[in-house]
Amino acid sequence: MDFKIVTLPGDGIGPDIVTEAVKVLNKVGEVYGHQFTYDEQMMGGVAIDHKGSSLPKETIDACLAADAVLLGAVGGPKWDNLPNGDRPEKGLLGIRGALKLFANLRPAVLYPQLKHASPLKEEIIGDSLDILIVRELTSGIYFGEKNKVVCEEDDSKTFASDLEKYTVAEIERITRVGFDAAMKRNKKVCVVDKANVLESSRLWRVVVNRVAKDYPEVEYSFMYVDNAAMQLVVNPKQFDVIVTSNIFGDILSDEASIITGSIGMLASASLGEGSLGLYEPSHGSAPDIAGQNKANPIATILSAAMMLRYSLNLDKEANAIEAAVMNVLDAGYRTGDIMSTDMKQIGTVEMGDLITAAI
Amino acid sequence: MDFKIVTLPGDGIGPDIVTEAVKVLNKVGEVYGHQFTYDEQMMGGVAIDHKGSSLPKETIDACLAADAVLLGAVGGPKWDNLPNGDRPEKGLLGIRGALKLFANLRPAVLYPQLKHASPLKEEIIGDSLDILIVRELTSGIYFGEKNKVVCEEDDSKTFASDLEKYTVAEIERITRVGFDAAMKRNKKVCVVDKANVLESSRLWRVVVNRVAKDYPEVEYSFMYVDNAAMQLVVNPKQFDVIVTSNIFGDILSDEASIITGSIGMLASASLGEGSLGLYEPSHGSAPDIAGQNKANPIATILSAAMMLRYSLNLDKEANAIEAAVMNVLDAGYRTGDIMSTDMKQIGTVEMGDLITAAI
Ligand SMILES: CC(C)[C@H](C(=O)O)[C@@H](O)C(=O)O
Ligand SMILES: CC(C)[C@H](C(=O)O)[C@@H](O)C(=O)O
Repeated sequence: MDFKIVTLPGDGIGPDIVTEAVKVLNKVGEVYGHQFTYDEQMMGGVAIDHKGSSLPKETIDACLAADAVLLGAVGGPKWDNLPNGDRPEKGLLGIRGALKLFANLRPAVLYPQLKHASPLKEEIIGDSLDILIVRELTSGIYFGEKNKVVCEEDDSKTFASDLEKYTVAEIERITRVGFDAAMKRNKKVCVVDKANVLESSRLWRVVVNRVAKDYPEVEYSFMYVDNAAMQLVVNPKQFDVIVTSNIFGDILSDEASIITGSIGMLASASLGEGSLGLYEPSHGSAPDIAGQNKANPIATILSAAMMLRYSLNLDKEANAIEAAVMNVLDAGYRTGDIMSTDMKQIGTVEMGDLITAAI
Repeated sequence: MDFKIVTLPGDGIGPDIVTEAVKVLNKVGEVYGHQFTYDEQMMGGVAIDHKGSSLPKETIDACLAADAVLLGAVGGPKWDNLPNGDRPEKGLLGIRGALKLFANLRPAVLYPQLKHASPLKEEIIGDSLDILIVRELTSGIYFGEKNKVVCEEDDSKTFASDLEKYTVAEIERITRVGFDAAMKRNKKVCVVDKANVLESSRLWRVVVNRVAKDYPEVEYSFMYVDNAAMQLVVNPKQFDVIVTSNIFGDILSDEASIITGSIGMLASASLGEGSLGLYEPSHGSAPDIAGQNKANPIATILSAAMMLRYSLNLDKEANAIEAAVMNVLDAGYRTGDIMSTDMKQIGTVEMGDLITAAI
């Protein structure tokens, strides 16, 4: 089969890690008889520098015409205070919106080979952890109406606001993604909200209760976000799938990633109604180590695996990538971020080569 | 001196723990020659049951006439789905609003005697931790306009919304509380926001930068909330004072509490412009152990110490309570929640008695 993939290397270590993922994909293509065609486009800081916008129109068009999009990372101090108010993150939010990628799937997985790297005590984290955070990605306070009203007579009254707003349709579709995912896992969903304070959370509860009727096998519960932030630290194993809003998902998915101790390993998928999806590592652009053959490419390589599974329907091939990563870890190879005593430290390129060879 | 204190025992373990704090206060009064007069009022579930409202008018009036308010805890499953939509939490939000308590101070302190109870590895948490979270408490998405718009023709379009809104004045006064607190501590402030996405956060940054000019000695920085949720787990010691909005403060203060491993020990103060303040433990109402002499009264007793310090200007007396708590911990006494091997397990009442005796 032929597949068209847009790559968005982006900023910082983005180009380093996307190069390795492409290497792995090409090997998968060879072994399993697929043709991957890449269309490299600009997004984020690099697009601001070269095209004058964090999200050029040709990037959106190319993504819309592709089977899937593979993103490295965006952002860096260089673009933090641009006079025109553009910023790399705007490109990221923009592409999510333009491609209607309303569902962000972020697995927080503890790799047994790396369990010592968790900041949590062993009696809490144990040997494994496997949480899937399903975050709503194109609505809520990220996309709701923004306002800044300057009061000329009395600056103390100047205000700014952001609207957390959800429709029934938006809540319903993300809830279905969460419950569908749970059906393929441990059939347990925890919906995180702040229903004791927020009107929007109360609507979430009504809709979730209704959608849940279609999934009689799924055991589901609600949890307040403040409590969830605690439970992730003291008892993370209670969670299977967490479904939540854009902003709460942003916070909790990062918290969940960090407790695995292997944020350099964690992939993510952003999906819409169709098969088009955007895949990116959970970590950031780490400008301080860009271009130095130091970045860990595994999160991006595993994002490519998610891409094969969710957008290209190539399950066997996705499994092959994941197995190759495991093999290389088992053989003791580590990039600097996940290095520990008695292991063999290698660079970005070597890690990509080893995983490619293991396919 | 004579002081008028309103007590709001509230629900669950609330009455158990407030009783012990009052015991300790009375001893302080005896030893240091003060007269504390208590006016017990209802708030939360108990007020719903007996007065038909989570926040009866006489409770507000009594609080407004008092020097300080000491709260136990509110809430419980019993009041979760009342037909009229009232709930214990409404009382709590209401009293914060009515007394204009815009600044919530939540110390997250690791007690050396309890450090083994932290969920974090020893190399991360070390021997001590002392973070002060300064949370804005009477504005933002908690108090902003709420809406629910039902669409009769097409229910999928029904929506609900909550408005995150801050004025310059609101941001300025909470920022000052944070910087003032930092001046008495390690002169380091981290302001947590989501300025790469939220307009309101960007206004926070403008105002904070302006206010900071009045505190040239304070070193301050900004951090995105998703990153802060990670940093609290991997490197909590980097923080001295965290200043943030209502919702982010809710989430982060709970996360910060739990990493100390001693949530049963953590006090909080909610303050306004004047000296009137409301003091309450950081933990919840734990209805499952209410009335069983099992609850840990220390967080409430330490909240009473904060009350002496911030509302009644009795610093020496506050120190005496804190020292008494330390003595009792050093002597090996523990309630169930903080029990460990070789310690002496005691109940709520005994803990109150021992701390009283140590004053
Ligand atoms: C860069 C930022 C806008 C983005 C977000 O908050 O969505 C990032 O934190 C993420 O989680 O992907
Ligand atoms: C009960 C609830 C409304 C409250 C809040 O979120 O403010 C609580 O979680 C707290 O932090 O004091």
